Amino acid sequence: MSPSRALLGDRESRLLLARIAEPYDEKVQELVSVHGITDLVGYAVHDGRTPEGISLERLRARLERARAVDEAQICRALGVSVVVPGDEGWPAPLDDLPDPPWCLWVRGPAAPEEWSGRSVAMVGARASTAYGDEVAARMAYELAERGFAVVSGAAYGIDAAAHRGALRAGGTTVAVLAGGVDVPYPRANADLLSVIGDRGAVVSETPPGGAPARMRFLARNRIIAALAGGTVVVEANVRSGARTTAKVARELGRHLMSVPGPVTSVMSSGCHEEIRLGATLVTDAAEVAELVGRIGADLAPVRRGEGRAEDVLPPETKRVWQWLRPRASAGVDELMVRSGLGLGEVLVALSELEERGMAEQLLDGWKRRAGR
Amino acid sequence: MSPSRALLGDRESRLLLARIAEPYDEKVQELVSVHGITDLVGYAVHDGRTPEGISLERLRARLERARAVDEAQICRALGVSVVVPGDEGWPAPLDDLPDPPWCLWVRGPAAPEEWSGRSVAMVGARASTAYGDEVAARMAYELAERGFAVVSGAAYGIDAAAHRGALRAGGTTVAVLAGGVDVPYPRANADLLSVIGDRGAVVSETPPGGAPARMRFLARNRIIAALAGGTVVVEANVRSGARTTAKVARELGRHLMSVPGPVTSVMSSGCHEEIRLGATLVTDAAEVAELVGRIGADLAPVRRGEGRAEDVLPPETKRVWQWLRPRASAGVDELMVRSGLGLGEVLVALSELEERGMAEQLLDGWKRRAGR
Repeated sequence: MSPSRALLGDRESRLLLARIAEPYDEKVQELVSVHGITDLVGYAVHDGRTPEGISLERLRARLERARAVDEAQICRALGVSVVVPGDEGWPAPLDDLPDPPWCLWVRGPAAPEEWSGRSVAMVGARASTAYGDEVAARMAYELAERGFAVVSGAAYGIDAAAHRGALRAGGTTVAVLAGGVDVPYPRANADLLSVIGDRGAVVSETPPGGAPARMRFLARNRIIAALAGGTVVVEANVRSGARTTAKVARELGRHLMSVPGPVTSVMSSGCHEEIRLGATLVTDAAEVAELVGRIGADLAPVRRGEGRAEDVLPPETKRVWQWLRPRASAGVDELMVRSGLGLGEVLVALSELEERGMAEQLLDGWKRRAGR
Repeated sequence: MSPSRALLGDRESRLLLARIAEPYDEKVQELVSVHGITDLVGYAVHDGRTPEGISLERLRARLERARAVDEAQICRALGVSVVVPGDEGWPAPLDDLPDPPWCLWVRGPAAPEEWSGRSVAMVGARASTAYGDEVAARMAYELAERGFAVVSGAAYGIDAAAHRGALRAGGTTVAVLAGGVDVPYPRANADLLSVIGDRGAVVSETPPGGAPARMRFLARNRIIAALAGGTVVVEANVRSGARTTAKVARELGRHLMSVPGPVTSVMSSGCHEEIRLGATLVTDAAEVAELVGRIGADLAPVRRGEGRAEDVLPPETKRVWQWLRPRASAGVDELMVRSGLGLGEVLVALSELEERGMAEQLLDGWKRRAGR
């Protein structure tokens, strides 16, 4: 209707908005909720005001430089990708946020659609104790062993211990950064972030090159909470930033868990307060898995108003489906080994999955597809 | 109606039953619920069978020796008293039990009616850690400072630490024994029990001289839970006896609280399990007082269907009443100092309390009375 609409598509609008505005800017959030991203960015680019005449001056400060950026070239140069809602790699759980990221940069081999359905956020104090580090590392290790991705913020203390525990188990771990995915922060964790980028995923809503500014940390915490099926607070004093992650987890109806500690330790005081406010006390990975695993299987489908495609599969077919990967194809022989089923059973399962659009045969084997 | 009824009154029947039967004997409990104590004891004494012809042989094994006992003389000799339901000194909260004690022996200056309305049970492992002992002692100290009586079982570990903490604050502490009130158990805590008997109360449903037999400990735990407005489990492994006390507290609708500790400590594992089952996590005396204090003021009156006599008093009058003691009288000068009120205000308050039957003037000053 307005001529400005045609200027940029949804994807380009989102990428541009991420460069010209801050996701935690409430004024911008309000404008987005009124006009939608495409129109809003269109108005900003066109003449810097909405049809009602409201000035969009704050969206034009960085506009010229932002329009000169070649996102595709940057992604290629850095070896990262960027996803927006609707993309195959977009982590659907982010849509539960009242203010989801406009886009998400991803560095590393672990694609969001692979881990976002089975993940646990582990957060806590930077000034953690040896007790907290030990519990975080062990819990992350055992969650990774159970196939859960461990999501955290790459900070000192509990965050780092959780990432390291998951890596030690050979599992998937995801670091959500406040700055760009190419800006290691804190510096002392640069090596850790490098390993996570090689074996897991480093993600951010801040464009590459962006600095980890203070307000971005709070905004970042909502992504950690939203990405995971549940959040565990391992150690936190009563005013810890980890508790903002806990708050979002609670608001989103995610499972919120907390690890107790000595009542004499201030680093457990925030955890105890969370438990008194309703968080589930957890002492090990099994208790976390029981809770978060259940959400994946039972609660999430109800909340989304529909079942998952795999819920209706016969047991053997589901077993084969679970061993298919969206990105790497696997041969029938390999699937027999992985699933522990016979040739006939695997072939029957694959043909059923193909019929349902949940698997596809390529030259070098079979891959998972989203289904329906 | 049956001639047996006339043999003994309620009080004598209860005292005799306590000597001839065990309170945890389910067969006896069933007989009591069918016939009532007076009739049942009457049948046992009369011809050892009910009107329906059921043999009461198990109630006659100790009968002859029990009838030879002079309870009044024993109480005098030991300096103890024995109360039954309806007596002024009977702790009313015991009536909430499905199987209340038939009678209760009490040794020590703290009369049940003084402390049973404002008390907290603290229980836990005998093989406690230094952490558990420290937390128990501090919490008991601070609860005693707030005017709560601390109820426990005089066992090693958490029990002893709780009693000692309350004593150190100059507060009231109550030891509930499995054996008779004159049988110190465990022996190593004989000194502690002696101090509790001098300054608080040692109580038991087992007659004087009775041994602390194993089954009596489980039965004793229900009394600890019932006597207190709330129970705090300080340290317990998953199979701890303290958890039977917790179970009764839960069943009675008393506040059940639990102190967290390191997830790496087996002595906190039972506490964590209780919290996961619904117990409130508490880290200090203030949190306990908030919860249990509320019950005394709000919930208990509703549950009993009537308010407390002191609830209707004007603020100043209540203040004076709170400083009156049932056993030691206080002069007007002393009450002015204690309450921080002026002479006129204290006199007005005392005359109102006297009118309501809630205070009485003796030669050496004023004492509290139960009221109504």
